[in-house]
Amino acid sequence: MIYLDHAATSWPKPPGVGEAMMEILNGPAANAGRGNHSMALQAGRVLFRTRSQLAKLFNISNPNNIAFTSNTTSALNLAIKGFLRPGDHVIATMIEHNSVRRPLEYLRRTQGISVDYAAVDREGKLNLEDLKTRFKPTTRLVVCSHSSNLLGSILPIHDISAVAHEHGATLLVDAAQTAGTYPIDVQDLNIDLMAFPGHKGLLGPQGTGGLYIRPEIDLEPLLHGGTGSQSEAPEQPDVRPDRFEAGTANAPGIAGLGAGVSFVLKQGVEYIYQKEWELTQFIMEELQSIAGISIIGPSLGESRTGIVSFTMAGRDASEVAFALDRDYGIAVRAGYHCTPLGHQTAGTLEGGAVRASVGYNTTTQDVEALIFAVKSLTKLY
Amino acid sequence: MIYLDHAATSWPKPPGVGEAMMEILNGPAANAGRGNHSMALQAGRVLFRTRSQLAKLFNISNPNNIAFTSNTTSALNLAIKGFLRPGDHVIATMIEHNSVRRPLEYLRRTQGISVDYAAVDREGKLNLEDLKTRFKPTTRLVVCSHSSNLLGSILPIHDISAVAHEHGATLLVDAAQTAGTYPIDVQDLNIDLMAFPGHKGLLGPQGTGGLYIRPEIDLEPLLHGGTGSQSEAPEQPDVRPDRFEAGTANAPGIAGLGAGVSFVLKQGVEYIYQKEWELTQFIMEELQSIAGISIIGPSLGESRTGIVSFTMAGRDASEVAFALDRDYGIAVRAGYHCTPLGHQTAGTLEGGAVRASVGYNTTTQDVEALIFAVKSLTKLY
Repeated sequence: MIYLDHAATSWPKPPGVGEAMMEILNGPAANAGRGNHSMALQAGRVLFRTRSQLAKLFNISNPNNIAFTSNTTSALNLAIKGFLRPGDHVIATMIEHNSVRRPLEYLRRTQGISVDYAAVDREGKLNLEDLKTRFKPTTRLVVCSHSSNLLGSILPIHDISAVAHEHGATLLVDAAQTAGTYPIDVQDLNIDLMAFPGHKGLLGPQGTGGLYIRPEIDLEPLLHGGTGSQSEAPEQPDVRPDRFEAGTANAPGIAGLGAGVSFVLKQGVEYIYQKEWELTQFIMEELQSIAGISIIGPSLGESRTGIVSFTMAGRDASEVAFALDRDYGIAVRAGYHCTPLGHQTAGTLEGGAVRASVGYNTTTQDVEALIFAVKSLTKLY
Repeated sequence: MIYLDHAATSWPKPPGVGEAMMEILNGPAANAGRGNHSMALQAGRVLFRTRSQLAKLFNISNPNNIAFTSNTTSALNLAIKGFLRPGDHVIATMIEHNSVRRPLEYLRRTQGISVDYAAVDREGKLNLEDLKTRFKPTTRLVVCSHSSNLLGSILPIHDISAVAHEHGATLLVDAAQTAGTYPIDVQDLNIDLMAFPGHKGLLGPQGTGGLYIRPEIDLEPLLHGGTGSQSEAPEQPDVRPDRFEAGTANAPGIAGLGAGVSFVLKQGVEYIYQKEWELTQFIMEELQSIAGISIIGPSLGESRTGIVSFTMAGRDASEVAFALDRDYGIAVRAGYHCTPLGHQTAGTLEGGAVRASVGYNTTTQDVEALIFAVKSLTKLY
């Protein structure tokens, strides 16, 4: 199997991830923070270690400002529902994933918040001037994807952050496609809240993710329950990370995530980005010379994450993906990628798009196989 | 290490759990339901298989009425926050865990719901007559622990269910201490909602759990986001389980949970319950003959889950647990067990209680070691 679906989940995981999970499962698996025997303490240390590695990767001063969640969606739900209050206005963008759009639309329907989606051009570039015109006196939050999961375009967080803060709004970044694959310095970028997955660019297992919460910002927790601290109080404790991590932690998953992040730190995010970028450029050069293939997203030479999405004239995306899988053993993703707004932007609402996405371990041979297969398919039809 | 903290998390896991996790991590780890290539389909099948095994264990007709969550706390938050509306009245009991109490107190504070806690006697027996007097015209939900995580007592779900339904209320059961260790037939017990952990009696890894939702009941999802289905709609789809499982699933964890549940099905819950009950009776017989030791919870001969909690005269529970760990290599849990109400009921709010809890793999030698150690400690002081 040639795996080109890293934007969904990275595979295979680097050496050490499975081992770290098994070590905690078969070793000190007892609940982190829930007991005072030595096994429980060991489990607690594993969580702290992974938190510290993530803090190093993202330049976060205090690891306790990272809350572990079960995926990016829970992190985004915690941020959005925990921050917004009735009457608030939010600005998001036209490339948001449903994990941003649906919580916002839910709050619009039930809590009377209002939402605007800032314009993005067909290549996935944010129209910053349009964003600026969307602010109202009630705008409290700006939410944006760091990189479109359909187009691969990278949004200028530095500029968006400056604009948001000028207007007194808080910035939430969805780093689903950039954590571990594109440099992120939350202090330099002045990010207030950042949701990230554990199982994509950070190379950990599914079931992991997290939210960075700037110390000055308080959120209402998404989960209320036991934290192993201040257990006599009827309310969630204030202390971080406990406040946002009610219930038993996914200790094996977080141990695996720690191994993934270690690998990323050792390789270096810049190195991974450069490698993936070169592979996308190669795919684009080859695919754009094939009649009937249209690549969407940023032009050749521009920055993008490891995503190349394309359409094949006269063919449904899912049909193409199915043929790639069955006849060529190549795993890509097709369809609507949970981002109808993104498809509207790209003009691919009808038929969807085929998304090939490379990862830290993708080889030139892998992408050559894709190019060969796509060429053959266009000749077949 | 002699492990007597199964009520927190079972350890070690039975053979096959780690292997099932590694198979999905290193094999078809791609997102379940998020792609149409064969690897993603395989991951989807793993989820379905575990769901089906859980349905078999709990006698649930349609596996799709089980939603996976990251732990019992998330399942309880989904049930409580997804079901209750402003103005609702809820009846819970005096042995509830903070994972029930804190969401209820949160809704009391913010949504104007009201809560009563039905009386439980010092042995952990629910006062059913007291429960009956608590109903109001606005009572929409009864929430109860199936078994106290402090006292080990087992609540009469059949009776509670009948009373709740007579009054037109819905019943939510917290099966944190009974799933996999005490027989549960949701149809026979007429349970409407049931939250359960994956990592305790079901012998799966931490990071897993679920909520059974009777088909007639709709809940507002706790997480809004991508489901891989109906992705063009701004709202969560109605179809189960997608409606309640936004975001990438913990596929390795759920695979491991499947192996755990298989083991439970093979051993038989009745067999596991009987075995654990006999071990608790042995511990109780021996401990109650030691001067200074007071056991809390049901009397000898009565039904209880694998929990025996006790106090040692003149000693803080945490001091006792620390000595058991350091000097005898025995892991038990001490403190407040996230259930201040339970401690109020048991009269152990001061000093807490030491909780020893047995599991499917606990041996007579293990509990003999505990008894010897407790005897020695009482002589020391």
